[in-house]
Amino acid sequence: MTQHKFSFGLWTVGNVGRDPFGEPVRKTLSPVEIVHLLAEVGAWGVNFHDNDLVPIDASASQKAQIVTDFKQALKDTGLVVPMATTNLFGDPAFKDGAFTSNDPAVRAYALQKTMAAMDLGAEFGAKTYVFWGGREGSETDASKNLLEGLKWFREALNFLCEYSNAQGYGYRFALEAKPNEPRGDIFLPTTGAMLGFIQTLDQPEMVGVNPEVAHETMAGLNFTHAVAQAIDAGKLFHIDLNDQNSGRYDQDYRFGAQNYKQSFFLVKLLQDAGYDGPLHFDAHAYRSEDLEGVKDFARGCMRTYEILAEKVKRFNADAEIQALLAQINAPNAEVEPFRGAYTPERAAALKAYQFDRQALGARGLGYEKLDQLTFELLMGAR
Amino acid sequence: MTQHKFSFGLWTVGNVGRDPFGEPVRKTLSPVEIVHLLAEVGAWGVNFHDNDLVPIDASASQKAQIVTDFKQALKDTGLVVPMATTNLFGDPAFKDGAFTSNDPAVRAYALQKTMAAMDLGAEFGAKTYVFWGGREGSETDASKNLLEGLKWFREALNFLCEYSNAQGYGYRFALEAKPNEPRGDIFLPTTGAMLGFIQTLDQPEMVGVNPEVAHETMAGLNFTHAVAQAIDAGKLFHIDLNDQNSGRYDQDYRFGAQNYKQSFFLVKLLQDAGYDGPLHFDAHAYRSEDLEGVKDFARGCMRTYEILAEKVKRFNADAEIQALLAQINAPNAEVEPFRGAYTPERAAALKAYQFDRQALGARGLGYEKLDQLTFELLMGAR
Amino acid sequence: MTQHKFSFGLWTVGNVGRDPFGEPVRKTLSPVEIVHLLAEVGAWGVNFHDNDLVPIDASASQKAQIVTDFKQALKDTGLVVPMATTNLFGDPAFKDGAFTSNDPAVRAYALQKTMAAMDLGAEFGAKTYVFWGGREGSETDASKNLLEGLKWFREALNFLCEYSNAQGYGYRFALEAKPNEPRGDIFLPTTGAMLGFIQTLDQPEMVGVNPEVAHETMAGLNFTHAVAQAIDAGKLFHIDLNDQNSGRYDQDYRFGAQNYKQSFFLVKLLQDAGYDGPLHFDAHAYRSEDLEGVKDFARGCMRTYEILAEKVKRFNADAEIQALLAQINAPNAEVEPFRGAYTPERAAALKAYQFDRQALGARGLGYEKLDQLTFELLMGAR
Amino acid sequence: MTQHKFSFGLWTVGNVGRDPFGEPVRKTLSPVEIVHLLAEVGAWGVNFHDNDLVPIDASASQKAQIVTDFKQALKDTGLVVPMATTNLFGDPAFKDGAFTSNDPAVRAYALQKTMAAMDLGAEFGAKTYVFWGGREGSETDASKNLLEGLKWFREALNFLCEYSNAQGYGYRFALEAKPNEPRGDIFLPTTGAMLGFIQTLDQPEMVGVNPEVAHETMAGLNFTHAVAQAIDAGKLFHIDLNDQNSGRYDQDYRFGAQNYKQSFFLVKLLQDAGYDGPLHFDAHAYRSEDLEGVKDFARGCMRTYEILAEKVKRFNADAEIQALLAQINAPNAEVEPFRGAYTPERAAALKAYQFDRQALGARGLGYEKLDQLTFELLMGAR
Repeated sequence: MTQHKFSFGLWTVGNVGRDPFGEPVRKTLSPVEIVHLLAEVGAWGVNFHDNDLVPIDASASQKAQIVTDFKQALKDTGLVVPMATTNLFGDPAFKDGAFTSNDPAVRAYALQKTMAAMDLGAEFGAKTYVFWGGREGSETDASKNLLEGLKWFREALNFLCEYSNAQGYGYRFALEAKPNEPRGDIFLPTTGAMLGFIQTLDQPEMVGVNPEVAHETMAGLNFTHAVAQAIDAGKLFHIDLNDQNSGRYDQDYRFGAQNYKQSFFLVKLLQDAGYDGPLHFDAHAYRSEDLEGVKDFARGCMRTYEILAEKVKRFNADAEIQALLAQINAPNAEVEPFRGAYTPERAAALKAYQFDRQALGARGLGYEKLDQLTFELLMGAR
Repeated sequence: MTQHKFSFGLWTVGNVGRDPFGEPVRKTLSPVEIVHLLAEVGAWGVNFHDNDLVPIDASASQKAQIVTDFKQALKDTGLVVPMATTNLFGDPAFKDGAFTSNDPAVRAYALQKTMAAMDLGAEFGAKTYVFWGGREGSETDASKNLLEGLKWFREALNFLCEYSNAQGYGYRFALEAKPNEPRGDIFLPTTGAMLGFIQTLDQPEMVGVNPEVAHETMAGLNFTHAVAQAIDAGKLFHIDLNDQNSGRYDQDYRFGAQNYKQSFFLVKLLQDAGYDGPLHFDAHAYRSEDLEGVKDFARGCMRTYEILAEKVKRFNADAEIQALLAQINAPNAEVEPFRGAYTPERAAALKAYQFDRQALGARGLGYEKLDQLTFELLMGAR
Repeated sequence: MTQHKFSFGLWTVGNVGRDPFGEPVRKTLSPVEIVHLLAEVGAWGVNFHDNDLVPIDASASQKAQIVTDFKQALKDTGLVVPMATTNLFGDPAFKDGAFTSNDPAVRAYALQKTMAAMDLGAEFGAKTYVFWGGREGSETDASKNLLEGLKWFREALNFLCEYSNAQGYGYRFALEAKPNEPRGDIFLPTTGAMLGFIQTLDQPEMVGVNPEVAHETMAGLNFTHAVAQAIDAGKLFHIDLNDQNSGRYDQDYRFGAQNYKQSFFLVKLLQDAGYDGPLHFDAHAYRSEDLEGVKDFARGCMRTYEILAEKVKRFNADAEIQALLAQINAPNAEVEPFRGAYTPERAAALKAYQFDRQALGARGLGYEKLDQLTFELLMGAR
Repeated sequence: MTQHKFSFGLWTVGNVGRDPFGEPVRKTLSPVEIVHLLAEVGAWGVNFHDNDLVPIDASASQKAQIVTDFKQALKDTGLVVPMATTNLFGDPAFKDGAFTSNDPAVRAYALQKTMAAMDLGAEFGAKTYVFWGGREGSETDASKNLLEGLKWFREALNFLCEYSNAQGYGYRFALEAKPNEPRGDIFLPTTGAMLGFIQTLDQPEMVGVNPEVAHETMAGLNFTHAVAQAIDAGKLFHIDLNDQNSGRYDQDYRFGAQNYKQSFFLVKLLQDAGYDGPLHFDAHAYRSEDLEGVKDFARGCMRTYEILAEKVKRFNADAEIQALLAQINAPNAEVEPFRGAYTPERAAALKAYQFDRQALGARGLGYEKLDQLTFELLMGAR
């Protein structure tokens, strides 16, 4: 393995393969077993929802034992816990949302549960705290006052930012968007929407995003573009890698399993931009797999990232590709004076300039060639 | 007609019915003819791209005559020009984008063209200036440095904000998102992404959004939710009403033509929130229509809004529906102390509270009944 | 209630609200309880998968008791069992398909299980036997020989047709298509694909289709068009009514809950074509609902159909709408001779005729008006 | 170049880059110029719509000259014309459909135009005649009697089959499905629907399908599965290769440009099944391209097919992959007796057999590994 910070959630390699139409196909692994499995396949970190580690109805002493055992497993294996999060979607109490439930008691319970989960994460040194509001949404908009819902969501996040600071946890919050499933529509459905929402919070500097390949792809959006916007805004705090076909149920496939080309451009963006945070594989093995298959799955996620990162190096070093890119992006001395911030003089000069519109439109840009070279490079055919 | 500020773009009722597979089916109408058509059907305002009004290759004297004629038509009919925008997509020069083109000369030309178009809009009193970056995108991400593209886009908007202020135009900018078409992927593809991007600008207070039903719907996103986020952020500066089936080419159907229920909840949100800006129908008649059909189309857009606004009143006055909503949103004195901003005491009290999780989960919420009543109310069956 | 043959599956009103991210929210109802619930809300029939009625691991004596109790409940309530089907998706054995599993033992087991389920259905007088191959598909096409899969599927259906005849069950088979979920891609993903496949069977006359609103809609296809093709082919043997937003997970909403307009045209097609088979609501209540909400859901399905059937009558009786339709479909005496089967004379005459292409293209068709009138009629606004 | 029968339509490399939002970016090439361009890049065949070759308003003498010139170009270059088709979508006359237009005069004109186009195709030796009913559909189902529409479509095809036979043209008809665009919904929207429809024709043996990657992909369907069904039914008469992201406008990208993995499995199916008909690239260059870029595009289509065909050979020769496949598909002597056609004895034996359901479900299938190996093979990483 390499310098990449590859992490998996307890719920990923621990997934038992239940789906809306079928029963579990694999047996439940304990958190300790999962840590050892992840160590075996070469992962760097492990993440959890509160109830992945500690069952929702565990007693205090059960919880203490679980924590002790889990710490020992981490110590034994060297794995770290970079991120933690709250399960605010599994229990029937959250069937109509957590922070945006119409029921004020549910909203309060969600706040309480999240504080406890933040305590738990902090105990393991997690520095990123993810919020995925899987039930914050609606099937019918008759049931919701949308503006109230956004207000409630904001109040909860503001409260929890304060809580984190008051406790000295040092968390950075990462908001994770998803367009739908398990709700008909989920609020703030895209990474972009989360970036907009963050600016309405009291402490926007504490809050960033956790984009997930599958979630943006479900809506047919270009995931790499969403990540670029997050990087541009200084908000890429965490990332969930997996794969998905668009316009479907949440598939959470092995990273790179479906969209080779898009996966490549994503890795290219991350590598070129110097992203060095966790690379979290929020995915699970096909339901056809047994425990060996789960390991194949986990190894595949990491190996695919490595292969694509190597392809990025080749792309950046390919003379023909780079020459094409240089030509496409060639500077133009004549229009150079028009670049830069607004000044009355610059605006006036620009307004007076005569552009040769036909010439601008006639130029061939060579993108077919560039895209074909990308294919051939990825295929190992150049 | 009513108090609603119904507007149409020159390009909407003026659409000649050309599509990727077929030739025009209607003859071109002059801007003056369109203004009179809109007056005839009862519209309040008319919007334009620079080249809807003044052809891209018009001489100065041709332009002067066009402006004079158009002003006279507005005077004769009483129509206003609430919004203007730039065509940065039709000419081959913009085939790889305008503000984000890799070609610095194209970027400069786009800036120049927009300044001129802002001048033109201001001449007619437009107060909202829309930016739809239809060509700001890519077919292959090999062709673009995404981070540079976002930087260029930002620089252009910052420049133009300054220009507007320097000229004293008083424009508010409204950014319009679209996920794809005519580019494979368009940058900042959702209203949420635009809301995020605005916060990276020098003068975010000048810039809001112009959400369009069809554009959010193409990606299968809930448009009403997107508008709610814009309202919540104080950024709903303009709105484009039309209709669309999701997961398809840009259909720009008559407002309300497809999704009756969603159209109702959209009108409900706008009416309940007191939105009183322009209601712009960015749509066009089916290709099956002649000029009479275009008028049917335009009248239908407005009449549908009126009918749905009337349904909103009934919904808000329906005793059974309102009783259900009151029950769903019933306050809860016991958890009331946990609401409000963070204090250590509040957090401690909340952490110590015993919730009855099972009871919270067992409660029936009556949303099936509520949604069915909505259907029946909309059908005129109650 | 009316003359319509409204039916529900045991799994519909019996749905406990488990989803991929959450636990059950409602308690399990016994088959007998469900029959009484359906009688209470006014349904006509009840359908089942073998294991909805008899658990997969029930002993012979348990099964006998269940059958006795269920028969009594049917007798007590007057409900009929028009359709039965096999659960070939829930058990881990079917994780890679049933009739198309790569494992010959699984294929044989699926055949055995289906024969037993056909026996069970026949015991209750079911005359339609549905095949939904929910697991017949793949996540990666590396895992499947697609041509073998289709051959295996065909062999199974041929075998089971023979079995039905040999037993004298009198079943008509109805194939139900779905594009994906729970598999990444399901074979024969549309009603059209099933219609094509049927013609490759040994006894195509025994086999028709069971189209489902949600399944065609998931792929963004026009469901009414699919049903029309089935009717045209004489193959509409059964129908599953519910609702869905396109491009998403399988939502199985209450009939008519989302797409009012499409639901209307569907009911119009069924009523106008004189379809008088079962109207099966293959849907379930929102997860927000308790038992009362389940009843609201079931009543809503039926009431919505009734309301839309009444709207169909009004549409067919609306003078303005019918006049428009008559005009659109006006006969044309001049081209009448060109209609009819091929003859050399007719072809020659047609080839020699001079059409006025421009006139054909210039005609306005009035579809905007017609569609607007449809909206207004459905809204109760005319 | 190789033995593959690579063909392009005149409209593909001749595409001028007009789209719904932008003007042409490339100049029009004459049919003769296109033939020479195709010869230069190494294509085998060229296809056309009637009006790609002969303008709709050409005089008889103009047509004669065009035909002469085109024949000469074919002779000069050695290119063949394997397929021809009719443009029944471009002219305003067809704005509401051709064979399914509500206007009987339009239906008759469509029949006339198609006969003439068949004459033209036959003159060049075309043996496949494609029907893409791009305008056979609706935006509002208020406008159409769906059952009449299907009947009219069938009558037209029956007539034209007879015409082909009467003229001795020897055509095989290939029906091409598309879900939407340019109509809101197109009738018979999938390859499967076409396969079903064919069986309702008078001479089904004359009629097959022409599946197109982009069209099935627009609806998010697995194209390879659709082609497999066509092969299984003996109906793969022609194929249109290109690429597309799902849930969008018709992109007609260079073959293999987007979905590397799916493109591979498609080539694998075609090669393994021994398909040896034309491989038609129904695609066009990005709008960023000039004439050189168009050649890059055309060469890329062919080269990508070659590269993937080579990968198929490696996949079929890869020992580890083949061992996995052998294991997955291992025969099972114990259940062997249950295979084969129905007999009462076989059914009885099968019903009496005891399956070990748990064992069937517990077996790991190794699909994660298989899929990962596929990725690595395609990446040139094994």
